[in-house]
Amino acid sequence: MPGRNFLFVPGPTHLPERVARAMMVPSEDHRSVRFPELTFGLFEGLKRVFGCGEGEVFIYPSTGTGAWEASLANTLSPGDKVLAPRFGHFSHLWIDMMKRLGLQVEVLETEWGGGASEDRIAQALRADKRHEIKGVMVVHNETATGVASDIAGVRRAMDEARHPALLYVDAVSSLGSIDFRFSEWRVDLAVTGSQKGLMLPAGLGIVCASPRALAAETSAALNRVFFSFADMRKANATGYFPYTPSVPLLYGLRESLSMLFDEGLDNVYARHARFAHGVREAVAAWGLAPCCRAPRWYSNTVTAVAVPPRVDAAAIIETAFRRYDLALGAGLGPLAGKVFRIGHLGDLNELMLLGALAGAEMAMLDHGVSLRAGSGVAAAQTAWRRGSVANREREVAALAA
Amino acid sequence: MPGRNFLFVPGPTHLPERVARAMMVPSEDHRSVRFPELTFGLFEGLKRVFGCGEGEVFIYPSTGTGAWEASLANTLSPGDKVLAPRFGHFSHLWIDMMKRLGLQVEVLETEWGGGASEDRIAQALRADKRHEIKGVMVVHNETATGVASDIAGVRRAMDEARHPALLYVDAVSSLGSIDFRFSEWRVDLAVTGSQKGLMLPAGLGIVCASPRALAAETSAALNRVFFSFADMRKANATGYFPYTPSVPLLYGLRESLSMLFDEGLDNVYARHARFAHGVREAVAAWGLAPCCRAPRWYSNTVTAVAVPPRVDAAAIIETAFRRYDLALGAGLGPLAGKVFRIGHLGDLNELMLLGALAGAEMAMLDHGVSLRAGSGVAAAQTAWRRGSVANREREVAALAA
Amino acid sequence: MPGRNFLFVPGPTHLPERVARAMMVPSEDHRSVRFPELTFGLFEGLKRVFGCGEGEVFIYPSTGTGAWEASLANTLSPGDKVLAPRFGHFSHLWIDMMKRLGLQVEVLETEWGGGASEDRIAQALRADKRHEIKGVMVVHNETATGVASDIAGVRRAMDEARHPALLYVDAVSSLGSIDFRFSEWRVDLAVTGSQKGLMLPAGLGIVCASPRALAAETSAALNRVFFSFADMRKANATGYFPYTPSVPLLYGLRESLSMLFDEGLDNVYARHARFAHGVREAVAAWGLAPCCRAPRWYSNTVTAVAVPPRVDAAAIIETAFRRYDLALGAGLGPLAGKVFRIGHLGDLNELMLLGALAGAEMAMLDHGVSLRAGSGVAAAQTAWRRGSVANREREVAALAA
Amino acid sequence: MPGRNFLFVPGPTHLPERVARAMMVPSEDHRSVRFPELTFGLFEGLKRVFGCGEGEVFIYPSTGTGAWEASLANTLSPGDKVLAPRFGHFSHLWIDMMKRLGLQVEVLETEWGGGASEDRIAQALRADKRHEIKGVMVVHNETATGVASDIAGVRRAMDEARHPALLYVDAVSSLGSIDFRFSEWRVDLAVTGSQKGLMLPAGLGIVCASPRALAAETSAALNRVFFSFADMRKANATGYFPYTPSVPLLYGLRESLSMLFDEGLDNVYARHARFAHGVREAVAAWGLAPCCRAPRWYSNTVTAVAVPPRVDAAAIIETAFRRYDLALGAGLGPLAGKVFRIGHLGDLNELMLLGALAGAEMAMLDHGVSLRAGSGVAAAQTAWRRGSVANREREVAALAA
Repeated sequence: MPGRNFLFVPGPTHLPERVARAMMVPSEDHRSVRFPELTFGLFEGLKRVFGCGEGEVFIYPSTGTGAWEASLANTLSPGDKVLAPRFGHFSHLWIDMMKRLGLQVEVLETEWGGGASEDRIAQALRADKRHEIKGVMVVHNETATGVASDIAGVRRAMDEARHPALLYVDAVSSLGSIDFRFSEWRVDLAVTGSQKGLMLPAGLGIVCASPRALAAETSAALNRVFFSFADMRKANATGYFPYTPSVPLLYGLRESLSMLFDEGLDNVYARHARFAHGVREAVAAWGLAPCCRAPRWYSNTVTAVAVPPRVDAAAIIETAFRRYDLALGAGLGPLAGKVFRIGHLGDLNELMLLGALAGAEMAMLDHGVSLRAGSGVAAAQTAWRRGSVANREREVAALAA
Repeated sequence: MPGRNFLFVPGPTHLPERVARAMMVPSEDHRSVRFPELTFGLFEGLKRVFGCGEGEVFIYPSTGTGAWEASLANTLSPGDKVLAPRFGHFSHLWIDMMKRLGLQVEVLETEWGGGASEDRIAQALRADKRHEIKGVMVVHNETATGVASDIAGVRRAMDEARHPALLYVDAVSSLGSIDFRFSEWRVDLAVTGSQKGLMLPAGLGIVCASPRALAAETSAALNRVFFSFADMRKANATGYFPYTPSVPLLYGLRESLSMLFDEGLDNVYARHARFAHGVREAVAAWGLAPCCRAPRWYSNTVTAVAVPPRVDAAAIIETAFRRYDLALGAGLGPLAGKVFRIGHLGDLNELMLLGALAGAEMAMLDHGVSLRAGSGVAAAQTAWRRGSVANREREVAALAA
Repeated sequence: MPGRNFLFVPGPTHLPERVARAMMVPSEDHRSVRFPELTFGLFEGLKRVFGCGEGEVFIYPSTGTGAWEASLANTLSPGDKVLAPRFGHFSHLWIDMMKRLGLQVEVLETEWGGGASEDRIAQALRADKRHEIKGVMVVHNETATGVASDIAGVRRAMDEARHPALLYVDAVSSLGSIDFRFSEWRVDLAVTGSQKGLMLPAGLGIVCASPRALAAETSAALNRVFFSFADMRKANATGYFPYTPSVPLLYGLRESLSMLFDEGLDNVYARHARFAHGVREAVAAWGLAPCCRAPRWYSNTVTAVAVPPRVDAAAIIETAFRRYDLALGAGLGPLAGKVFRIGHLGDLNELMLLGALAGAEMAMLDHGVSLRAGSGVAAAQTAWRRGSVANREREVAALAA
Repeated sequence: MPGRNFLFVPGPTHLPERVARAMMVPSEDHRSVRFPELTFGLFEGLKRVFGCGEGEVFIYPSTGTGAWEASLANTLSPGDKVLAPRFGHFSHLWIDMMKRLGLQVEVLETEWGGGASEDRIAQALRADKRHEIKGVMVVHNETATGVASDIAGVRRAMDEARHPALLYVDAVSSLGSIDFRFSEWRVDLAVTGSQKGLMLPAGLGIVCASPRALAAETSAALNRVFFSFADMRKANATGYFPYTPSVPLLYGLRESLSMLFDEGLDNVYARHARFAHGVREAVAAWGLAPCCRAPRWYSNTVTAVAVPPRVDAAAIIETAFRRYDLALGAGLGPLAGKVFRIGHLGDLNELMLLGALAGAEMAMLDHGVSLRAGSGVAAAQTAWRRGSVANREREVAALAA
């Protein structure tokens, strides 16, 4: 098909030209005397994006799923109890992994469309008098529903319960797009992948571990070799990896970190907030509602749009893809056929998003959804124009400075 | 700035990924025994795009301007008389070149916004009883005004006047996007560049010459070495070039020709027609008018939009670029500040164009143009949805076949 | 430094231009209706390279180390006994992994420089009357010493012992370069990575599993989620992956498989054999010896060159890198400082290797090794010229056919 | 064929990875407000490479041949007399162009293998009492024979003859590789292309013009439009071009200039001198002689090697290409079949050149040339090792500083 694909799934995200260029490297000896120049900067840069003061970052040739496993396998033992709210497909999958690794999971079932309930977490922790719960596992941004939990609030709940459990956070679809404060929130294990806010292809699973998490390593009895923190740390200390890293992704990561810092992390977060607001304005203009039940949970990286009853969201997605070259995210699990998802994260600008909104409109119209052509586009334009003069020029000025 | 630039000047056009990949080649020996495999296919493919049966194609490491010069220098002599309608900036520049090369140009001044008048051409030719006019020079698609002349009509006019002049056509912003029939229309010299419908960076100037044009070479007394047909033909005959060609562009050309043939030239032309129609619908929805004065001249590759009095089109263009990363074409010559131009040619799809229309709306609104946000987008969506079910699936089926 | 790096470590190997181009892809939706077109071909192609008739291939976004873990975790249970000859750094590391995963490893210590002893394997298996040994673990090509074990011979030994253990083979630095016959040799689990004979960056860990291996999955009690065969199989069945794959690597793999098939697997193996022979001729001309103790173990992908006593191989390697931009492999473990390794696998030709041999000569001369400049180059030239007329033209003809 | 092509024609030269990456740019609006940031630096950088203080640089989307034409057409009139020594294929072609443009050329025929004779130039100029000779046209580095003329010496000869002719220099295969001092030597027009020392694909023709050359423009009556200095200057003044430039080449040029300045121009020249010396040592070790007749003319960028009588150099070149993937330059004109040429310019290191020398040896041996395998390689190794400790570390230190 002529022209560019409009990739608006909530990850992988659009590959920026700068990153594409940076990944165009010949193979090289990853044991050379020169290689550490590359690696040291990556750990520093990632810590900055995580907001991590004390702690260590691990980069696995893997994915977010692998990083999930690394975070668990290096800090927990078979039979350990953990507490995990379930409010979407990805919190579900993580819980499934925990169980299969032999952990005992106390699941806090939560209606999809809401986020981690600080109250229920506090309650569960207060009930755990013997401190058997070793970890509280929260998905920061539930990609399935477009819901962002309040990690600072979860930390406050844990503090109020005076509970020593480690705080595990899945930051896969938030890191680099939504403000994340690893040290301030006293997160112990934060997990991400390369293909979302870090604007790379999939292939890196990244874990940020606090000193407490690292201390848990000695007693953790789950098996780990490929995902071992210890093996990584030993090699990383001199700038190397215990096995062959995916070199193009590392060069790409160096560039994507530069892009984030060039734009300024605060500007990046503000841009995502602004884009998310405009997308929600568009959804409202269509007469539809986001899957997310309350403004406090609104995600700045993904919006799940509930389609009217009797309309098949899957058919809209297929039409968007086949007819308009627009990739939208599907509804997952119980949401299959009921929602389509718009990813609005990564290397994006207004016109890319407006093109996507226009395409979603056309696909919905093609399937009989009752809406006015251009209405969502107009709502987003209005949201973004209002902001544009003030915000954009501030951003541009910041970039120029 | 984050995200992709929306490049909607009427050339250079968006570089397709396939072409970008194809141009990623190491340097190679352009005198090797293997090189002709590359070159022979290019001449064949270009002839097919020109619609040229008998004739020869020349590829210069140059631009459309260079190809203009090649077409003149190889077929005319100092003092030769030519007839040229002037109805825009590019017809103006070509006439300027003719004069500077020592030709006598009978200029048919035409209001900008119209195309080559077949009647006036016929009249001028009939008046030339001695057949002193050696060439009729017509810009097929005047990029400055969004006007497409009727080359078949011009040929009819020449035939009716029974005049033997050669027919020179500037097809720079039409070839590969608007139907072109070199042999059927008995064009003698057609000129194009690589950065428009051929979807490449600038750097190739291309001339298609008829047997009559080639015959004119022997008597043509204008100087030529770099642009010599004879030197080219001699080297091309064995698959080589008289001097070092720009190899990445040749590989890119091979790929862009494949793209055109994969889509099907007729589908390519239909797509451009459909896109142009939608853009004009958007312009009408904005309450504005195209610079082109009559439907018979509507260009399928570029629309020049006249802004309301007292609004500065140049300011709109600058805002579009700086604030929304949208590149629009400026008004040229007498149209400076009065129009902005939207290129809708090359490797494009609906959503790219809708993003551009949305951006143009925002920039116009930012400068006080009175229009409803989303109105142009909606008009184009409607135009393209109507077409989409029928046309697109036909195209897709054709591609799959 | 000006010019190209000469990468002659035994992996990662030189990235071919075709593969580099193929990996230059935009991000795309790995859940799209079009994605399976890509994936199905990869499994078929890999099976062909493994020589696998019945069986399944799994592709993890990981490395050879991850694939090691996948092969073990999906087929074995904690406490299971396995038999593993140790004759180099990589067999050592794999054994280390087995132990850390809770397996009981009967290690057959073998002098480095030799390969897996069929006799000792047969002996150990015969001694295992109760068939407690669940797996025989053999590194096909020990990259540390330049030794290729005889997998067909190992299989014969197992057959003679009438032992039902599964046969696990590390084919990381052999697959795609040295003939591998998964089904003929009745290998049960073969493991490889992307950065050797498959000519890609690191980032894919690949496992080929026999029906018997797949049957072992149900009883295998080792933990696995990220590396689960079952999760992979379920998603792969429809052309997808259970988590986001590294899309550029998959496109790269499609192209590298095409390159292998275009050249012809037998031609690829013959080329590697010819190159390895010439390198050994060079080593002999230098008056040095390969680390590999006997011709039957000669590796066609890597030669470890023992330097004279009192010469520091590490210094030679550093000089080669810093002064001549040549990356050689270091001696590992007990071989550190005693050998340097030349990788001669992947997308190579004679002149690349001759440049590397010339560079190794210069670096050795710079460190006082007594040899004649050009002597190794001359020996290899002679080996390759003799072959060139006959062999190369045969290869070229085969390619053209 | 597997592996990389060894490109050792004297241009186009090997494309460095940095340049390849830099050229991977999307199309962009060459009239944008941001474009001049790119262009201004190019003119400055090129002036630095030319050694030009006062003067102007023009960049044409063209080739060296086009730049030849630009230098003539902007400064001379039909019938003007020029003086031009002919001592190789490229001086011959330039003279041919002069004649075809209507100039009267006084040719100083010189045996191929020598360079421009300062004495004969002085003599001819002294004989021109009326100062009818408007230009002295010298090829700095005659690529056909591997001969570098002494431009400083030519200037001295012109000074001694007190002749006001302009000094035109073809620096196509010298600029960026051999020291060039436009202002110090008072060159008036220097011409180059992008595909030699500037390490780019062909596609840019570059002219550096002195104030005297620019003054000649007003009276110059040769036709010029595409190649007009005046049109270029007018657009360049604000950072633009009169017609669409080849944007990837401009980004590539920015990078290749950076590479030259990063290495240091003096280091670049020293490296070329060192490489040329080693190649000549190899030729001597083969028992052959360079085409260049005297050390004073030795070129640092290309060596033409005369093969023994009864040996067909063309067959050696074809074998090198087909069998060893080595591209050597052919003998041109009267040298066809008698020499092969090794280009040793651009982004090269020792091992690349040693691979090429080894390949040339093999091809010569295949055609019965009597030489010892490895002999040329050994001679070059010795030349380069001697230099390597001292020179390379100095270069490396300079780069690090």
